[in-house]
Amino acid sequence: MCKNATDRNEDDGRSTDEKLTHTDDNGDVQMVNVGEKPDTARRAVAEGEIHLQQSTVEAIRDNDVKKGDVLATARIGAVQAVKHTWETIPMCHQIPITNVDTDFSVHADRAVLTVAVETTGKTGCEMEALEGVTTGLNVVWDMVKAAEKNADGNYPDTAIRNVRVVEKEKRSDSK
Amino acid sequence: MCKNATDRNEDDGRSTDEKLTHTDDNGDVQMVNVGEKPDTARRAVAEGEIHLQQSTVEAIRDNDVKKGDVLATARIGAVQAVKHTWETIPMCHQIPITNVDTDFSVHADRAVLTVAVETTGKTGCEMEALEGVTTGLNVVWDMVKAAEKNADGNYPDTAIRNVRVVEKEKRSDSK
Amino acid sequence: MCKNATDRNEDDGRSTDEKLTHTDDNGDVQMVNVGEKPDTARRAVAEGEIHLQQSTVEAIRDNDVKKGDVLATARIGAVQAVKHTWETIPMCHQIPITNVDTDFSVHADRAVLTVAVETTGKTGCEMEALEGVTTGLNVVWDMVKAAEKNADGNYPDTAIRNVRVVEKEKRSDSK
Amino acid sequence: MCKNATDRNEDDGRSTDEKLTHTDDNGDVQMVNVGEKPDTARRAVAEGEIHLQQSTVEAIRDNDVKKGDVLATARIGAVQAVKHTWETIPMCHQIPITNVDTDFSVHADRAVLTVAVETTGKTGCEMEALEGVTTGLNVVWDMVKAAEKNADGNYPDTAIRNVRVVEKEKRSDSK
Amino acid sequence: MCKNATDRNEDDGRSTDEKLTHTDDNGDVQMVNVGEKPDTARRAVAEGEIHLQQSTVEAIRDNDVKKGDVLATARIGAVQAVKHTWETIPMCHQIPITNVDTDFSVHADRAVLTVAVETTGKTGCEMEALEGVTTGLNVVWDMVKAAEKNADGNYPDTAIRNVRVVEKEKRSDSK
Amino acid sequence: MCKNATDRNEDDGRSTDEKLTHTDDNGDVQMVNVGEKPDTARRAVAEGEIHLQQSTVEAIRDNDVKKGDVLATARIGAVQAVKHTWETIPMCHQIPITNVDTDFSVHADRAVLTVAVETTGKTGCEMEALEGVTTGLNVVWDMVKAAEKNADGNYPDTAIRNVRVVEKEKRSDSK
Repeated sequence: MCKNATDRNEDDGRSTDEKLTHTDDNGDVQMVNVGEKPDTARRAVAEGEIHLQQSTVEAIRDNDVKKGDVLATARIGAVQAVKHTWETIPMCHQIPITNVDTDFSVHADRAVLTVAVETTGKTGCEMEALEGVTTGLNVVWDMVKAAEKNADGNYPDTAIRNVRVVEKEKRSDSK
Repeated sequence: MCKNATDRNEDDGRSTDEKLTHTDDNGDVQMVNVGEKPDTARRAVAEGEIHLQQSTVEAIRDNDVKKGDVLATARIGAVQAVKHTWETIPMCHQIPITNVDTDFSVHADRAVLTVAVETTGKTGCEMEALEGVTTGLNVVWDMVKAAEKNADGNYPDTAIRNVRVVEKEKRSDSK
Repeated sequence: MCKNATDRNEDDGRSTDEKLTHTDDNGDVQMVNVGEKPDTARRAVAEGEIHLQQSTVEAIRDNDVKKGDVLATARIGAVQAVKHTWETIPMCHQIPITNVDTDFSVHADRAVLTVAVETTGKTGCEMEALEGVTTGLNVVWDMVKAAEKNADGNYPDTAIRNVRVVEKEKRSDSK
Repeated sequence: MCKNATDRNEDDGRSTDEKLTHTDDNGDVQMVNVGEKPDTARRAVAEGEIHLQQSTVEAIRDNDVKKGDVLATARIGAVQAVKHTWETIPMCHQIPITNVDTDFSVHADRAVLTVAVETTGKTGCEMEALEGVTTGLNVVWDMVKAAEKNADGNYPDTAIRNVRVVEKEKRSDSK
Repeated sequence: MCKNATDRNEDDGRSTDEKLTHTDDNGDVQMVNVGEKPDTARRAVAEGEIHLQQSTVEAIRDNDVKKGDVLATARIGAVQAVKHTWETIPMCHQIPITNVDTDFSVHADRAVLTVAVETTGKTGCEMEALEGVTTGLNVVWDMVKAAEKNADGNYPDTAIRNVRVVEKEKRSDSK
Repeated sequence: MCKNATDRNEDDGRSTDEKLTHTDDNGDVQMVNVGEKPDTARRAVAEGEIHLQQSTVEAIRDNDVKKGDVLATARIGAVQAVKHTWETIPMCHQIPITNVDTDFSVHADRAVLTVAVETTGKTGCEMEALEGVTTGLNVVWDMVKAAEKNADGNYPDTAIRNVRVVEKEKRSDSK
């Protein structure tokens, strides 16, 4: 992921405009140099939810009890999205992903996906966690399309909401 | 994208459980057979928003006036995500994308991204549009990370919200 | 997939050497021109098996009854491999995959994976089916590594065997 | 590749069921945390064979003497497959591949492919070696399709057999 | 590839500025809508050369006589690059590639690569041909690096030159 | 990138033929073992130019002043190409890219693209820089196609020229 996500200090005292660290003095898009950054153990957790009809949630629940394929497929899609963030987000660096943990909590009217990512790289991994959440929720949407859409083929009740970073950690005691 | 997104009729009268058309009678995950479906002109539009600090929105606006690189990068990320949906969403088919249109409207506290996708394939393209929206918004997040995060490196004000399909069309007069 | 897999007639009367249709008169590797081929409905089925310890098979069976994640993950890996064959096999064309059907039969000492692929493209799809089978079996191997390997970390009982094409069909009545 | 492939000790005393380390207590599929694992020099060798008609083997031999394109293309396909294992096998980590060595031995009725992979990463690399072998053999199949199939377009004599891990090494004296 | 490459007529009478058809009225980058374009048989040929030391050219020639691996590898890299153009060039559409033909002519001080691409899609394929040429020449460079660089590790004699489109064809008699 | 690009010494005294280090004693294509190489800070800069009509250059300039989307898109394409070099160039290793810097200088009749790449890996990164330059120039070509081609759809004035490595550095004082 991108260095500017990981070091607050050196951002202090810089104007908001200067803080668009992916844009150089000419306003040209750029990657950020992380060559001088040490390898550090980092962790980021993102979360988001997909709102569904209660009948769909029940179908997922039953299906989850039976085979769990809807959520299992979404978990796999989330893990793959985490690993592909370096090519999905144009200005991101590729970092070694050491762990991806996906958790679904299914409520009456929605499924909540939490994705925790850990790396030992030179930058943080919140973009990886966010990519895991949004892709995993899109996979759920894809798996329940027939159940969610109305006679016009539209999705009056389906929406992805409240995608955010809920935790970030940078362990100084990393090798 | 997946057939079950495109044909309501044959879903009618099927129980919600049967409507999980990516899961077969054994509950095993599966792709859906679209071999008998004709090529049809289809269009889907998805929309979503990223909530940001007002100072960040102003920086994007200025940057947009100057070079537009933040939003231009997000547009490119969105177009690439649309084209990669067949591999990002495990059970999706690859369909010929004939058009991708991305539009940002920047408000005081958020940027709203609308992605319209058109295809001449055998299935609908709402998953492509949704992938374009969520990825494009993630790219914006990546580009403004340094401006959005607080002294702890967290994002108290940043969130992706209200991602939904706003339009679907299936032109019968397609070749 | 590659044209030379799909048209026997024009191969007749050619020497075996000439039949290496991926190699031109100079022996240089080449793609095969399918521009003049009509779109045709085609189907290919490949099958293969992974030999495992009986205790591992039982663990998969239990796991399959409970959640099916080992085989569900292998199915998803197989479907993705089918869709990626055009880039995995250097001289293959990309064809529109209209259906992928994966089936596991679990025996006392092995799991047998059958992958059926259908296309409406200009070439056959047996390479897609073979890629689905070998990748799906590799995913099973990856998922049961800890159970299969001995104290030295080797796999005395694990092997992928008998991967072959069991069915090919070319429907002339295709649209 | 996946941690559970590399550490036997901590598996000891665990039931076979617990040894499905890609499945957590809920039976949900998961990646394995390798964050605490040191970088270690590791090597894995896999081997497999493709059975062919003798006339096809002779054509490959002649072709090999002339240009070597069939086997050269298969070698390149194998190397690329090794490098792509982290995305082909859903639960695998990406590890730094430091060496890939491919060797073909051509017999009267088959070609045997041996792929040796070395890494300095946190996990073993047998899945990379296995992916190299199965993909390389599939590339051979693709290159000789026209020569192998019969008048019905089927492959009565073609089969991939005996794919296994023949060597694993973990050097403790790694930097 | 992109529609604006393929239809001159509708460009007539438009100012050069309007001809930047990847930029809309707001100057925002965009894909071009090809939904109304018929499928047409198209062909494009691109050519380029890599200048090398004569001793390197001789090594390639000998190697070519022996095994042809340097040029065979470059051919495979070129074919793969043609197939990946839709993701390498951000605003390109994916089109069905029906044929790729690669030809090397080796001269005393350089190797010339010609790549011909054919498609039955809605747009031209010169970007595919250009991607094939530049990537194929980069592969040659990679394969002869040790022979080309001087004691400082630099490349005083190596250069890729004269990359251009040498032929374009659009057959009206396409199905 | 490939080891043989990074160590001159061990090449000394070897015949040109032996210097084709991607080809083993049998002339078979191979990757190069970098397992014993230390991680080192390395930098490579490549440069190349695309020749255009003056009217097109003016359109890019205006467009650059207004939104910069043509060159911004080319920059993004170049950065992505740098990150994908390990899969584009068959025998390359994947190395950690720590920085990519792209610079365009626009002249009356051409645009010159300079791409600087930095890594902390075991091999040099000139192939990454070359891939960034050739792809970035191809993106420019794609973006100005409508403006450059003549009534026959050909490109009499468009050409990519003078692609070369202009700088290489290997810092011994790397961590």
